[in-house]
Amino acid sequence: MVMKRLTLAALATALLAGALAAQEQRLASLGDFRLESGQVIRDCKLGYRTLGTLNPARSNAILFPTWFTGTTESLLSEVGSGKLVDSSAYYVVLIDALGDGVSSSPSNSPEQPRMRFPRFTIRDMVNAEHALATQVLHLDHVRAVMGISMGGMQTFQWMVSYPEFMDKAVPIVGSPRLTSYDLLLWTAEERAIETDPAWRGGEYASVPAPGMRTVADIHQLALTTPHYVAAHTTREAFSAFLSKTEQDAMKSFDANNWIRQLQAMMANDVSAPFGGSMEKAAAAVRAKVLPVVAVQDHMVNPGPAMSFARLLGVPAVELDSDCGHLSFGCEEPHLAAIIAAFLER
Amino acid sequence: MVMKRLTLAALATALLAGALAAQEQRLASLGDFRLESGQVIRDCKLGYRTLGTLNPARSNAILFPTWFTGTTESLLSEVGSGKLVDSSAYYVVLIDALGDGVSSSPSNSPEQPRMRFPRFTIRDMVNAEHALATQVLHLDHVRAVMGISMGGMQTFQWMVSYPEFMDKAVPIVGSPRLTSYDLLLWTAEERAIETDPAWRGGEYASVPAPGMRTVADIHQLALTTPHYVAAHTTREAFSAFLSKTEQDAMKSFDANNWIRQLQAMMANDVSAPFGGSMEKAAAAVRAKVLPVVAVQDHMVNPGPAMSFARLLGVPAVELDSDCGHLSFGCEEPHLAAIIAAFLER
Repeated sequence: MVMKRLTLAALATALLAGALAAQEQRLASLGDFRLESGQVIRDCKLGYRTLGTLNPARSNAILFPTWFTGTTESLLSEVGSGKLVDSSAYYVVLIDALGDGVSSSPSNSPEQPRMRFPRFTIRDMVNAEHALATQVLHLDHVRAVMGISMGGMQTFQWMVSYPEFMDKAVPIVGSPRLTSYDLLLWTAEERAIETDPAWRGGEYASVPAPGMRTVADIHQLALTTPHYVAAHTTREAFSAFLSKTEQDAMKSFDANNWIRQLQAMMANDVSAPFGGSMEKAAAAVRAKVLPVVAVQDHMVNPGPAMSFARLLGVPAVELDSDCGHLSFGCEEPHLAAIIAAFLER
Repeated sequence: MVMKRLTLAALATALLAGALAAQEQRLASLGDFRLESGQVIRDCKLGYRTLGTLNPARSNAILFPTWFTGTTESLLSEVGSGKLVDSSAYYVVLIDALGDGVSSSPSNSPEQPRMRFPRFTIRDMVNAEHALATQVLHLDHVRAVMGISMGGMQTFQWMVSYPEFMDKAVPIVGSPRLTSYDLLLWTAEERAIETDPAWRGGEYASVPAPGMRTVADIHQLALTTPHYVAAHTTREAFSAFLSKTEQDAMKSFDANNWIRQLQAMMANDVSAPFGGSMEKAAAAVRAKVLPVVAVQDHMVNPGPAMSFARLLGVPAVELDSDCGHLSFGCEEPHLAAIIAAFLER
């Protein structure tokens, strides 16, 4: 009896360890990775985590790259029962996008530190992720690619760059090409960094960078909606809210990484290889697509994703809440059910 | 016949000169002006322009103070037939708010230059305007006070500070007290200035200040709505749009003035002298009030003005357009008719 209990406890521990190990941070080596620009990321590493089990037919993998400044650690909360994707049904591969501080980035590259790290694009992110999927994970086809925000931008790019690689695609609050409003937002953040006295010689020697306070404030302004901020933070609580917003940014974010990922988003345009024709880009898509937009999104304008949906002839899921860009979280139960049904079909 | 024509031409010239003279920039001397803080603006000047004619009963004056960073010159376009107020019916007094670069300001004070210019509040602006009205213009009562944005904030303050002074009040996209969202917006602009390397020793020695580029971008983000920017500026036109936005700000705006008026707005709270009770502040109001809000306003959150309207028991005019804060301009014909009818009643 004592033995049996010990055995069960040991088994539980082993299972738990196995589950933890499965979603542990891993780092794949892609060697010297050539970018579209012709520049090379030396000794390129790509971070990822897997959850769930690849079925024998190797047909249930879902690729899920990170949002702007996010890591696969921050994506863990989006996976599970009732979450945006359920790893009991799918082999979920969370991928750290280039420049996120886990994958090769200005902050961690020994040979190409800080702004000596070459500029990269959303297409470069996707090409690196394709290399990970095919060369490291030995997947030649996946059930789906999905992602949130900059992850949604990568999803649009995946659909166009590797149209035969996935059955389905779920770009969530992403965009196939930014509008002038989006460019203005990211330019404001860029300017706040460039004006920082710590931005010497065009790069930060160290973090925290004072300019990131301004960046954090701008980011916070666009993350939800004015009504959401006013309703959830009283005037009395404003000072604490501001401190948390700014201190979190200064602690968590590397300003050099921030700039390189910003530049990737600003250059994002799936139509570029098609002479700027969105019609031609959309015609290249083979996947079944479920575009999810937030109509009150002040961070990634929903217009281009909605236009692309029309070109594909599919309806977009339109989330309408004062959570704005964060509507995917505020409306998670509702959205998770829609995505689950779409992935199953 | 020749004589007659000459006479008419001379008369027309004289009339035209009179009309121009009437709206010319004037500057009233208020002497040393004591602020609520106990500090004093030395040799305080207040700019103003008058349009239309004061009737014999002296009962048709309308005070119209400026918006944030605006001058009475910029307000001229709001006055006329079909505009927000018609000077054929009213004696319109446009007033340069403290700190606007025309009235006493950090940029033009010989004795208290730049950040040595004392902080002032919206209440101080209104007290100075009351001194202008009573001591210089010899008005002891006016038909109305009206204003746009920070002018609307001053209008709310006028209603509460000098309740018997006006028959009517029209605060347009203003606020009796800012929300946490508004505070976040103005804080972001403040931070952008403070992080500027040219901001030495806590003040700018000269303009243009590079940090104003970032400020201009943040301001532009909130002035209309994301949809408005995306719809009115193509990606191709973005670069020119950005240059114009930033260069206009760097040319036109003094960063020290900007900060002092920002601080006035951030401290804006008509309930302060009533122990923080908006109910008591509203109970002090005697004027008939027509609050005008823009429901998609991302620069001055409409919530507090709408709440104040409910406390007054009056309906707010709710403009709903993707022009956001600028809806008063985009919907001018419609709004002008509503205001004209309200002022006449």
